[in-house]
Amino acid sequence: MYNVGIDLGGTKIAAGLVDDNCKIIFKNSIPTRAGRPFIDIVSDMSVLALDVIRRGGASIEQVESIGIGSPGAADRSKGLILYCSSLNFRDVPLSSEIQKNIGLPVFLDNDANCAALAESIAGAAKDSEQSVTVTLGTGIGCGIIIGRKLYGGFNHAAGEAGHMVIDRDGEQCSCGRKGCWENYASGTALVRQTRKAAADVPLSLINRLSSGDISRIDGKTAFDAARRGDEAAVRVVNQYIRYVSEGLINLINILMPEVVVIGGGVSHQGKYFLKPLQQLVSAGVYGGSNLPQPKLKAAELGNDAGIIGAAMLKSQASR
Amino acid sequence: MYNVGIDLGGTKIAAGLVDDNCKIIFKNSIPTRAGRPFIDIVSDMSVLALDVIRRGGASIEQVESIGIGSPGAADRSKGLILYCSSLNFRDVPLSSEIQKNIGLPVFLDNDANCAALAESIAGAAKDSEQSVTVTLGTGIGCGIIIGRKLYGGFNHAAGEAGHMVIDRDGEQCSCGRKGCWENYASGTALVRQTRKAAADVPLSLINRLSSGDISRIDGKTAFDAARRGDEAAVRVVNQYIRYVSEGLINLINILMPEVVVIGGGVSHQGKYFLKPLQQLVSAGVYGGSNLPQPKLKAAELGNDAGIIGAAMLKSQASR
Repeated sequence: MYNVGIDLGGTKIAAGLVDDNCKIIFKNSIPTRAGRPFIDIVSDMSVLALDVIRRGGASIEQVESIGIGSPGAADRSKGLILYCSSLNFRDVPLSSEIQKNIGLPVFLDNDANCAALAESIAGAAKDSEQSVTVTLGTGIGCGIIIGRKLYGGFNHAAGEAGHMVIDRDGEQCSCGRKGCWENYASGTALVRQTRKAAADVPLSLINRLSSGDISRIDGKTAFDAARRGDEAAVRVVNQYIRYVSEGLINLINILMPEVVVIGGGVSHQGKYFLKPLQQLVSAGVYGGSNLPQPKLKAAELGNDAGIIGAAMLKSQASR
Repeated sequence: MYNVGIDLGGTKIAAGLVDDNCKIIFKNSIPTRAGRPFIDIVSDMSVLALDVIRRGGASIEQVESIGIGSPGAADRSKGLILYCSSLNFRDVPLSSEIQKNIGLPVFLDNDANCAALAESIAGAAKDSEQSVTVTLGTGIGCGIIIGRKLYGGFNHAAGEAGHMVIDRDGEQCSCGRKGCWENYASGTALVRQTRKAAADVPLSLINRLSSGDISRIDGKTAFDAARRGDEAAVRVVNQYIRYVSEGLINLINILMPEVVVIGGGVSHQGKYFLKPLQQLVSAGVYGGSNLPQPKLKAAELGNDAGIIGAAMLKSQASR
């Protein structure tokens, strides 16, 4: 049997036909064109789901459910998106509308939760009862697994660790508070920090690697320059890793998961990122060397985690 | 039937005979004299437990278990205190030693967890599946209840929310990091902030209320002076409430419990504390008015929470 996972994003809608071993048989994506009426997006999602079933070589009778990972806060018991600023949705009945179109059971959860579920079932945290998956992307996504189940809190909105203040008089965040972790430790923040270093240090290798065009600086640039010894880039990388560690240590002190999975482009920097990060985290966690320490691991499922986790939501439905 | 709860603190050891309705039938306490050998403290705890059973009018046959709430990190499955700086304990087999002396099953957990369990079973959070109990005392204690069970994380050390950094270049904390929440929002921090205001503003009512003796300033002084309109005291109280809110909002954004129970002396300030705190928290939580909001409640069991929660640890043993 199969399940379809749909990863509804602000930029694109990706869907995949997923088998019982969490393998994607066929996947496809279309632009979201956020801002359109809800019902038009529902229509495109339904067509895409039917498309990946057909082109994956399955019949609709072989598909058990449609799972959806959505940005914002979702009420999974009612299948509503309660609130999503990037899609301009509020209290929209996503599950029931998709169900009307396709005639299969529909399960809905937050996209960061879907990534955490995928890593927990089939990825870097698959041997752990408790894990947290932190995705360093445009913002910081965070999904919490407790007892191998997604933890959503009483209003299905738990895991907003990106909006944990780590610097109470710090940078203004879009959420209204100052100094939220994602302003310092998201992928977006790393790019901003690298661009600032490029402007401040004209002779830095960062500028040569980006041909002097600041818009070509991405989340890899500082790491590339740092590996070649550029001092300004080394400072950016070290400071960024420290920013990431501050929020991670806070999260670990509260939740003490066995494994923390780190996703997002920067997780591919391997030993240049995870190793120094693990050192800072181990040194900073309360109780330190007196207690067993959570392990940091790079995400294993990459961009597919959203599709795979959405397809696995059915397994969570008995909660 | 009864259970005995022992609240092992850095200053005193309190024990109580607790009935099946979570009522304390008889309680007593003795000084801890921290720094003594482990085995001497075990001996005193055992004598105290037998004392409250006898003076509570019960026989040992009517007692099901001994529960212990201890500072530091406890391994509840093995009955060990892994690490406790205030008692200078490391990897001590507390449960088995007490069991040798008394011959009853012994259950052990962290003291903040015992307080959270008590409030969850018999106090301010008794109607909630998920709650967090935050005690603003010498430091900040935090216990997490998920699905009506204590959550300890993989190493039994979860809930160290007091060591969540809210100001990454802030005050040095004893844990080694800078800017931990408890340096700003514990009861100790409130006293320190009040004393500073007294020194900075000699004409403040704070000084008159403490007869000019800075050592007489306690956690109530600023609230007492603020209620009578003293400007310096109003500033202290407002800033303190803001500090408390910063960490609470972080914790809520991560865990989204239905109820947050606030304990410690300051929780008795009622509407002068909880009401403005709830306003700040509701305004700051991610998703704000778009989502149902966790409720803040004052702790109901006060200093007895440690004894009651320890006595109830037996109910958690099937985890």
